[in-house]
Amino acid sequence: MTDITRILAAAERLKGHIRRTPLLSSPFLDEIAGRRVLVKAECLQHTGSFKARGGWSAVSALPEAVRGRGVIAFSSGNHAQGVAAAAKAFGIPAVIIMPADAPALKIANTRALGAEVVLYDRAGGASREAIGAELSAARGLTLIRPFDDPEVIAGQGTCGLEIAEQAAGMGVSTADVVVCCGGGGLTSGIALALEAKAPGLRVRPAEPEGFDDTARSLATGTPQSNAAPSGSICDAIVTPAPGQLTFPVLQRLAGPGLVVSDDEAMMAMALAFTRLKIVVEPGGAVALAACLFRKDRIEGEAVICTASGGNVDAALYAEALGRYGHL
Amino acid sequence: MTDITRILAAAERLKGHIRRTPLLSSPFLDEIAGRRVLVKAECLQHTGSFKARGGWSAVSALPEAVRGRGVIAFSSGNHAQGVAAAAKAFGIPAVIIMPADAPALKIANTRALGAEVVLYDRAGGASREAIGAELSAARGLTLIRPFDDPEVIAGQGTCGLEIAEQAAGMGVSTADVVVCCGGGGLTSGIALALEAKAPGLRVRPAEPEGFDDTARSLATGTPQSNAAPSGSICDAIVTPAPGQLTFPVLQRLAGPGLVVSDDEAMMAMALAFTRLKIVVEPGGAVALAACLFRKDRIEGEAVICTASGGNVDAALYAEALGRYGHL
Repeated sequence: MTDITRILAAAERLKGHIRRTPLLSSPFLDEIAGRRVLVKAECLQHTGSFKARGGWSAVSALPEAVRGRGVIAFSSGNHAQGVAAAAKAFGIPAVIIMPADAPALKIANTRALGAEVVLYDRAGGASREAIGAELSAARGLTLIRPFDDPEVIAGQGTCGLEIAEQAAGMGVSTADVVVCCGGGGLTSGIALALEAKAPGLRVRPAEPEGFDDTARSLATGTPQSNAAPSGSICDAIVTPAPGQLTFPVLQRLAGPGLVVSDDEAMMAMALAFTRLKIVVEPGGAVALAACLFRKDRIEGEAVICTASGGNVDAALYAEALGRYGHL
Repeated sequence: MTDITRILAAAERLKGHIRRTPLLSSPFLDEIAGRRVLVKAECLQHTGSFKARGGWSAVSALPEAVRGRGVIAFSSGNHAQGVAAAAKAFGIPAVIIMPADAPALKIANTRALGAEVVLYDRAGGASREAIGAELSAARGLTLIRPFDDPEVIAGQGTCGLEIAEQAAGMGVSTADVVVCCGGGGLTSGIALALEAKAPGLRVRPAEPEGFDDTARSLATGTPQSNAAPSGSICDAIVTPAPGQLTFPVLQRLAGPGLVVSDDEAMMAMALAFTRLKIVVEPGGAVALAACLFRKDRIEGEAVICTASGGNVDAALYAEALGRYGHL
């Protein structure tokens, strides 16, 4: 299990390899939200997202002999790049299993980070698990899961350590911390870090409409699934259900969840662009959207949120700017 | 005159009020440039540009009684917002003189920072200097010049102090530092800071084609003017000629200048967006463009550049993404 000791150990291993991202703000956003908004700009992290933290944490935690044989991950997005970047830095092989119909840019970006990309035919019924199991067995690769892994959660938790320090430095000791939530790795990692280092900060998961499995799971007390596997522009954080390791942490430390529409995520993307000068992807914008457009559901004089942006679709961003660039 | 003592004094006054902006990088940009590229993301500074440093430095350096009467600036852009933000924080009046045909967004942003915006009819032949002189005399306002002011240069120089520290922390002690150059306040401030703190780092001014007054002035040894007053998308750094205080500093410490096209600035905007997740304006992208597209004119294994983005035109950015978002 992940606890503060494991998070602090991850922070030691990450030192010098992972950026301490800034906590940004703008008086224009404060006015919309009706309170001070502090944005943890994880889009400025290596590979564009906090996944670089979890990837580094997991790869660096492996015993050297095991690590040397290489790692494997199933991902078409930010987790793939986080694992690939860490593997490259350690000089070990990384195999990333991706659907053959993944966006060409994501495949190219993952390959450019030195990973071996193995494509499978999602429509043709190929099982990525079978492909992965075969490769792992043949080559002794270690599977790095995207969120249900204690060292991945610990790595994401280092983001929470930074939030605790930065918020204290800005005089904020009591606030909601709204976190973009997919499988819950970042959300539970931050929650564990804050429990130990800034108990006045409470984590609130943010999700897109129709894919609010975590919000509903927290409300009902039992894990809930989403009706559809996909269908939101916030693809980076669409997962079928909360994780087995992450949900118990969230149940104890986080909630209630906040839910925003795809359109509100696009407004937040445009406002992050014009007011903070950062580029976020739709799934990385839902927490900011919740701060701005669910203000009645949030308490306190300040609110903190995460913002991530690993795989940004330039055309979609241009559309967001066309519609909401004037906000 | 500005020297390292004045820059260090400005850094003391700026502490807690100005962000220490990150020095970002991406393996994708390194590949294009053929060397390590480190980007000082001043777009993440308060108000979106380094002008917040100079504004704070100048306002905070005034004797309290003088400051209390207020400040005045001529600017339609980033300098206006830098001065307005500092004045607001000190609770003093700020008057900003702007042409009546300035973009509505810039006027609105400056007003939102609490400044009193006085518009003048540029086409009708009104003299902003006459308007400014009359207002200053009547109300005892202090004029804050955009670059030819020792305290403004000292404020911009604090960016150079950070570059010196951050580059050393990344193991870079010898490199060109390419700086987006208009009147030369940032360029000369950084040059003075590096002279004292990182003498292995050499400043190179970057300018847009047709408005390369600094490059030509450095090449010929005497101040040169631009043929036209405007006509580049890089409007934030278009000035008629180098400053009287800044040019002697540049002559002693900086050069040769680097010149890029508007189109190359737009490519750099798109690459900053996709690879660094930051938003820069055209004039704030010329230094990155020079690093990427003038690599034969740059020496060393690493290059550092500034990137700023106070007043970003969302429609123009969308155009840049449409044309170069695939790069």
